[in-house]
Amino acid sequence: MKSKPLFCCCTAIALCLSFNHLAAQKSKAELNIEQFGARKDSHEDATAAVQKALAFIRKNKISKLVFPKGRYDFYPERAAEKYIFTSNNDEGLKRIVFLLEGFSNLLIDGHGASFVFHGYVSPFIIEHSDHITLKNFSVDWDRTFHSEGKILSADNEGIVLSFAEQFPYKIDNGVLVFTDKQHREYPYGSLLEFDPIKHETAFMASDYYFGHGQPAREISPGIVRLLSPGIKGNPGNVMVFNALKRLCSAITVSDSRNLSFDSLNIYHCGGMGIVALRSRDVSIRHLAVTRSPGTGRVLSITADATHFVNCGGKLLIENSLFENQMDDAANIHGIYVQVNSLLTPSKVTVQLKHEQQLGFDFIKPGGKLELVHNTDMEAYDTLTVKSVNRINKEFTEVEFTKALPAGLLTGKDVLASIDDYPEVTIRHCIIQKNRARGMLIGSRGKVLIEDNLFHTSGAAILFEGDGSYWFEQAGVRDVTLRNNLFDNCNYGVWGNAVIQIGSGVQKEFRNVSRYNRNINIYNNTFNVFDPRLLNGYSVKGLRFTGNTIKASDAYPNKFAGAKPFDVTDCSDLKIDGF
Amino acid sequence: MKSKPLFCCCTAIALCLSFNHLAAQKSKAELNIEQFGARKDSHEDATAAVQKALAFIRKNKISKLVFPKGRYDFYPERAAEKYIFTSNNDEGLKRIVFLLEGFSNLLIDGHGASFVFHGYVSPFIIEHSDHITLKNFSVDWDRTFHSEGKILSADNEGIVLSFAEQFPYKIDNGVLVFTDKQHREYPYGSLLEFDPIKHETAFMASDYYFGHGQPAREISPGIVRLLSPGIKGNPGNVMVFNALKRLCSAITVSDSRNLSFDSLNIYHCGGMGIVALRSRDVSIRHLAVTRSPGTGRVLSITADATHFVNCGGKLLIENSLFENQMDDAANIHGIYVQVNSLLTPSKVTVQLKHEQQLGFDFIKPGGKLELVHNTDMEAYDTLTVKSVNRINKEFTEVEFTKALPAGLLTGKDVLASIDDYPEVTIRHCIIQKNRARGMLIGSRGKVLIEDNLFHTSGAAILFEGDGSYWFEQAGVRDVTLRNNLFDNCNYGVWGNAVIQIGSGVQKEFRNVSRYNRNINIYNNTFNVFDPRLLNGYSVKGLRFTGNTIKASDAYPNKFAGAKPFDVTDCSDLKIDGF
Repeated sequence: MKSKPLFCCCTAIALCLSFNHLAAQKSKAELNIEQFGARKDSHEDATAAVQKALAFIRKNKISKLVFPKGRYDFYPERAAEKYIFTSNNDEGLKRIVFLLEGFSNLLIDGHGASFVFHGYVSPFIIEHSDHITLKNFSVDWDRTFHSEGKILSADNEGIVLSFAEQFPYKIDNGVLVFTDKQHREYPYGSLLEFDPIKHETAFMASDYYFGHGQPAREISPGIVRLLSPGIKGNPGNVMVFNALKRLCSAITVSDSRNLSFDSLNIYHCGGMGIVALRSRDVSIRHLAVTRSPGTGRVLSITADATHFVNCGGKLLIENSLFENQMDDAANIHGIYVQVNSLLTPSKVTVQLKHEQQLGFDFIKPGGKLELVHNTDMEAYDTLTVKSVNRINKEFTEVEFTKALPAGLLTGKDVLASIDDYPEVTIRHCIIQKNRARGMLIGSRGKVLIEDNLFHTSGAAILFEGDGSYWFEQAGVRDVTLRNNLFDNCNYGVWGNAVIQIGSGVQKEFRNVSRYNRNINIYNNTFNVFDPRLLNGYSVKGLRFTGNTIKASDAYPNKFAGAKPFDVTDCSDLKIDGF
Repeated sequence: MKSKPLFCCCTAIALCLSFNHLAAQKSKAELNIEQFGARKDSHEDATAAVQKALAFIRKNKISKLVFPKGRYDFYPERAAEKYIFTSNNDEGLKRIVFLLEGFSNLLIDGHGASFVFHGYVSPFIIEHSDHITLKNFSVDWDRTFHSEGKILSADNEGIVLSFAEQFPYKIDNGVLVFTDKQHREYPYGSLLEFDPIKHETAFMASDYYFGHGQPAREISPGIVRLLSPGIKGNPGNVMVFNALKRLCSAITVSDSRNLSFDSLNIYHCGGMGIVALRSRDVSIRHLAVTRSPGTGRVLSITADATHFVNCGGKLLIENSLFENQMDDAANIHGIYVQVNSLLTPSKVTVQLKHEQQLGFDFIKPGGKLELVHNTDMEAYDTLTVKSVNRINKEFTEVEFTKALPAGLLTGKDVLASIDDYPEVTIRHCIIQKNRARGMLIGSRGKVLIEDNLFHTSGAAILFEGDGSYWFEQAGVRDVTLRNNLFDNCNYGVWGNAVIQIGSGVQKEFRNVSRYNRNINIYNNTFNVFDPRLLNGYSVKGLRFTGNTIKASDAYPNKFAGAKPFDVTDCSDLKIDGF
């Protein structure tokens, strides 16, 4: 390491004066990040400036922090640190640039700034805060968490890929490893082929899941043969190596309320765009999750664009664009824990079952939980929590105000909160060209989805929920889908109809369960290249009326002869043409 | 998962009675773990019983917990959880069976019990506690963190290994991965050949370091060919795949005082036997770190037997056996942080540089630090800490009561505490057949090492310390080595003499630096198969007198003609025969 010049006294005095000046301005509600030493377009690390600004804001109850338009770079070195559990993402001791804990009434306005992050760092984590607005900036990374290789050729031994300079790699002991200039590594967990002309997942391409890296051989600098006999790909297409873990979502919110995200461009992150846990009243307007301009990349972010777990209040998403991300545009659900063992007649140990749900503590004294067999997924008892004793991120002891019912099945039954569900409005959005679904709707609050364009590789709308695999609580009660354009969805493998009402209700219980209720689909337009419009079971109140269906030849029809409406085990049905 | 039977009311009532009975006995100072539901030799998980017992002990100020002799099994599921930084080990969110935080005056007596751990779990973590005694039990694991394969053959393509059932594995996508019955994985970071007849590292064997697993092919169940062209091994010997990380040391102590460890057998752990940080007055008596009986394994534990960082008070190790572990028997040192940048004339940012030192927070207001150039390693200023602001596990801002000196070199200079050093006594111990050194002595307190037997693959005694690689503060001031038998040490590659006084003093500064001082070596016996007795530089006060040197033919002499005493850049020397 080079020796650095000694601290300049002039700078010290200038900074002291600057801080005194700031202290004198307490009443002035607006701060400029430059006052804390950040210099736009300098490519210097602005993280320490953010830490100082946030400390000052907290102390002086400042309500606005602005960034003059320009580029700001953020590195892990001077970032805050906290162990973070984020449902549907990967836990870890994270470096965090904007860690807002217990903040109230704060607007951060980027005035069109570009925030460029470097390495394993979380841009925004907002906890136990209220009335927070983030607006007018973009989020991107210097080196992405995923990597992309252009397919040059394919044969029985595997495929040959060309990697651009933005995706540095090495062959380590015969295995392909992605790196960066700082020698950080970027493990990958799956591969998926993209069509770089259409800027979407290749027609009917499937994920390849691999552990422990891919055996590979470098042919020449930037040209690599993957030594994977089973792997296929079309020359000219792009193979995306997706990040193994979701460690660095762009914006993570928990236990907060009254949040507004406005005019944000999220070009990349190593996880989700916006994920909110146990929070209320979240508004998203003019959010673009899309490919980083000028990079030639086919992928935007490595997981869902937005995700909401055990949220309440009003949830609004409007005038937004969600494209090219590696998972769904929006996913809204609760969490089930499994009853692991009965400790006393009124006390159980519960277990968070999915690895990405560990540490999701939602059970509180006074809270109401539904008790559900994982077979029919319908509540058979309601319990009020008396006390909670968290053992570790996986197990919690819960005592109730009454005895558990006689039919309790430990190792099978699940519990979920019934205290709160969001009222959801999603309108005027474009959802396209991403891997998997458009929206997973699992709120029991009123849901309105209108005036959106869907062009998704999987189902445009999926209703899910199960107590055996993902342990996501869903089961809608009042959903309206109207005036949407469903344009040639399901060109990939992640759905069996444009609108799919599935769940983990086990086959022999589907005739008795009515897990989802009151879904109204009307005045939409469906452009379809295969017949599969609607698939569903265990629904009470399903209406599909007044929609316009147009045949398309945008993709090959691999499902000729399939039923437009594959609907069983439902009641109160009204489906035009069924 | 199978449905489990409902809770038995009789058991509930019995437990309630049992707890009431306990509450009534508050005055009785001794508890039996069976009172909390543990059943010896049942192979049931006793972890929940330990959690209940510890909660009861804390509440009722109990001073003794006993285990009736027998086997007790411990699993991660019901263990406590905490993010732990342990210097010279790997940080992580750990599951902990005995988490003693803020305990005082407690004896845990195993009465000869066998504690058998399963998976990634830490047996004992003791923090901010005092007057704690652990005695009379053994620690072992159901499945070790390392794996061992018998070498069947070796050729230019690699080696063929046979794995016993106790080391389950799979070939995952062409790569060898070690597993267990619960499908946990056991990553390895290095390979080392052992001689199973002598029960020690093979003569002059070196570590092979590999990342990302070894390409391999299964020949038949249990027989695997490693496809590593560079790897060598002698048929009949055993290749040890050492754990990639040190995640589960047996006993970890921090910020505690008056600790006693007596009559413990540590047969295995995934890290160190006993590691103590920032603690005072630690006594170890009758500790055996050795191979698990009846398993046929060649390795005991995967890292150092004992390790002490920034400790003080009296440190005693006596009547103990340290053998077959993967690193040194004892290592005693402080930690240097690097001065990263100057923030004001009296304030710096310091950086913990070694990955396994991250989170080692030792700088406190009022503490005294020495300031050292990393070239000569001698203090050129002493500073008193005014305030500390931890940024993250890597960086901390430190303000001093005076300005930093003009000669400060950021990115090069290091700081370490000079408040406390342990007075060390190590006697009547056997240190043998492990990888690497016997003891690394880096305390500036009085050190006495007497009446021990050393048969180590590297140097028996190593004096170290540097500010460039390991960042370990050392530099002894008063060391006596007497009446020890050094029996055929240095049959491996981890030393250049039986007693080695090295350091990170850079070559051109060795003539001016006197980093180590006052080392007296007398009345010892050296059985040597090669001539190299003593190697050292930058020492003031080095005496090697009245020792008995005996030639041996126990191993081939690969260093014929080497000097017995390779000593330069020293003063106040007295070496018989030099």
